[in-house]
Amino acid sequence: MRKVAIVGVGSTEFGELWDKSFRSIFLSAGLSALEDVGIGGKEIEAIYVGNMSGGKFIDQEHIAALIADHSGLAEFGIPAVRVENADASGGSAFRQAYMAVASGIHDIVIAAGIEKVTDANDPMEVLSTAIDQEWERFIGADLPAIYAIIARLHMHRFGTKEEDMAMVAVKNHRNAVHNPRAQFRKEISVEDVMGSPYVAEPLKVLDCAPLSDGASAVILASEEVAKKLCDDPVYIDACTQASDYFSIQNRRDILTFDAVVRASRKAYKIAGIEPKDVDVAEIHDSFTITEILAYEDLGFAKKGEGANLIREGETEIGGKIPVNTSGGLKACGHAVGATGIRQIVDLVLQLRCEAGKRQVNAEKALALNIGGSGATAVVTILSR
Amino acid sequence: MRKVAIVGVGSTEFGELWDKSFRSIFLSAGLSALEDVGIGGKEIEAIYVGNMSGGKFIDQEHIAALIADHSGLAEFGIPAVRVENADASGGSAFRQAYMAVASGIHDIVIAAGIEKVTDANDPMEVLSTAIDQEWERFIGADLPAIYAIIARLHMHRFGTKEEDMAMVAVKNHRNAVHNPRAQFRKEISVEDVMGSPYVAEPLKVLDCAPLSDGASAVILASEEVAKKLCDDPVYIDACTQASDYFSIQNRRDILTFDAVVRASRKAYKIAGIEPKDVDVAEIHDSFTITEILAYEDLGFAKKGEGANLIREGETEIGGKIPVNTSGGLKACGHAVGATGIRQIVDLVLQLRCEAGKRQVNAEKALALNIGGSGATAVVTILSR
Repeated sequence: MRKVAIVGVGSTEFGELWDKSFRSIFLSAGLSALEDVGIGGKEIEAIYVGNMSGGKFIDQEHIAALIADHSGLAEFGIPAVRVENADASGGSAFRQAYMAVASGIHDIVIAAGIEKVTDANDPMEVLSTAIDQEWERFIGADLPAIYAIIARLHMHRFGTKEEDMAMVAVKNHRNAVHNPRAQFRKEISVEDVMGSPYVAEPLKVLDCAPLSDGASAVILASEEVAKKLCDDPVYIDACTQASDYFSIQNRRDILTFDAVVRASRKAYKIAGIEPKDVDVAEIHDSFTITEILAYEDLGFAKKGEGANLIREGETEIGGKIPVNTSGGLKACGHAVGATGIRQIVDLVLQLRCEAGKRQVNAEKALALNIGGSGATAVVTILSR
Repeated sequence: MRKVAIVGVGSTEFGELWDKSFRSIFLSAGLSALEDVGIGGKEIEAIYVGNMSGGKFIDQEHIAALIADHSGLAEFGIPAVRVENADASGGSAFRQAYMAVASGIHDIVIAAGIEKVTDANDPMEVLSTAIDQEWERFIGADLPAIYAIIARLHMHRFGTKEEDMAMVAVKNHRNAVHNPRAQFRKEISVEDVMGSPYVAEPLKVLDCAPLSDGASAVILASEEVAKKLCDDPVYIDACTQASDYFSIQNRRDILTFDAVVRASRKAYKIAGIEPKDVDVAEIHDSFTITEILAYEDLGFAKKGEGANLIREGETEIGGKIPVNTSGGLKACGHAVGATGIRQIVDLVLQLRCEAGKRQVNAEKALALNIGGSGATAVVTILSR
């Protein structure tokens, strides 16, 4: 297995991009990544695309080949593969791209994530195809309902408060203010969150990430090629994926995402680090409780003590381990299949010291991308 | 890159499986493959699933994790990845599985393909999300219309007759009679095809593959592991993928699928063979013209002379290069995302001399799986 580096990154803004089409946003992200590394595109040997539901959102499947063509790469005929694992599609596509280069099959590939949700009638209904249609959705549960059950049980068992969850949203909004690509560049207060209407008790509107349009792209290369292309490659120390029981009622513990535990432990081992060595992280905060749960499952806090990290400011910029300096899914936006790639983009900016006012001092960075209610998790560890 | 072998294969019957659910058919295919090699399942290190449109066909995305769970593998938490490239999803998932083992990342993985189409209101409408929604579908073209244009031009430029195309359907139906998993185990005549109603002139009902329910699975292992597990592993000599302009109007020649040309030439080179060395092939005959075009693009015949092969019986069982001894998509059935895996299953049976009355004498076998109107092609070469 060869060392693999990230040599270029690009992303659109995330948000309700009413005036931009699916095709224009992936072009924009891809071109930014190519410009970032200073190549034209014909060097690219394969394309991996993370996308959750082109079919249901825009009535278009087969989008990897579509993207290869509209990116001007059709004449080279390179393999183009779409990967789907619900909102972990981006992370999962990144991992396939990583494997393709690490194995020596390809020297330089692009991994992109994209979702155009605003063209659909009911994006939340589409997102809920990520959970079990026969055992969860059929009885009326959607993703907020599932996470509300998790949040309620966490409160009951560990004393986590609605205010603790609110503080996650407050932190992520504060971080997003300085992220030019974030959907909500606006501070909010704990009172704002507490006063927002319930979506599924105890989760309120401001506990929930939005559904966004957006696309992100990263270019991966072998160490040898990377050194020729740029002075500051960011290395992929590990990229792992794991799964869990699909619906939450079958799990050994509703408050532990075993997919996150498994993927992260394996990643730490491969990278030769421990949770305390992580300097900055992008965590899949689809709901505020998801981030608190992830603190625990990633080993940043003991089970049940995740809320302490947010109470004590440990995950703020300037804290021991800043989480979601981008604003996270909550404030940067959640362009579903793009999110896993967008996380990598933001961590690369941090490791390259290009994060502007959000900059933290970091050598090791971790991304956690989760599919649905935790049946899929992808963990990536990067270093400069 | 290590040598990779196929150690187990399994498949459901293809057809209108009204009394079977999505979940029961993938279980059935997966269990057959495990039984074939004689392992229980916990040995499997990763799952790759080819599926075109779980979202639109059964309102369920995130199906790789669902399949991992319902196959009893959730407790092991192995990575599960869905791959989508329209009706080349199966071939493309197979290729990712192949890469995962060839690279040394995994020792033994399962590649499965599945589609449940009969639960959807309008399966053909779903299938047409494989072509360009903005430049083709929007003006009313669907997949039969696109292939009808190709067929009409082939007739005009090269003198191919409707009767030639009909003979492809007749051959494939004849082969399917002896395939216990085929949807249409019934011979038809050229007159039957010629007398069937037009779908899109010059293509008639009996020129078109059906849309079917079905699932297929193959277990791939490194050479070392394969030798421990079975006496008769089938080796993967090459597995390549290529893309082309997405919609046909942009291509240099509407009558050449460059993705097929590129993928096959690369595969021949890697495998160290020429087209004439192929002893048996499974070809993506979504329409009868698709098979004739593939004869040419794979190099079995010169451009424009594909129809000669069918006229002269060269691709019959007993001919120089038997094609679609399974019955092909036309008569075995086309379970969209399963088809690319089903082709591999049938070729493995041929190479193991387990094809019963369909058996041919073969050492080198080739599978061609095509996405949509040719924007994606996957070519696999197997040998015993």
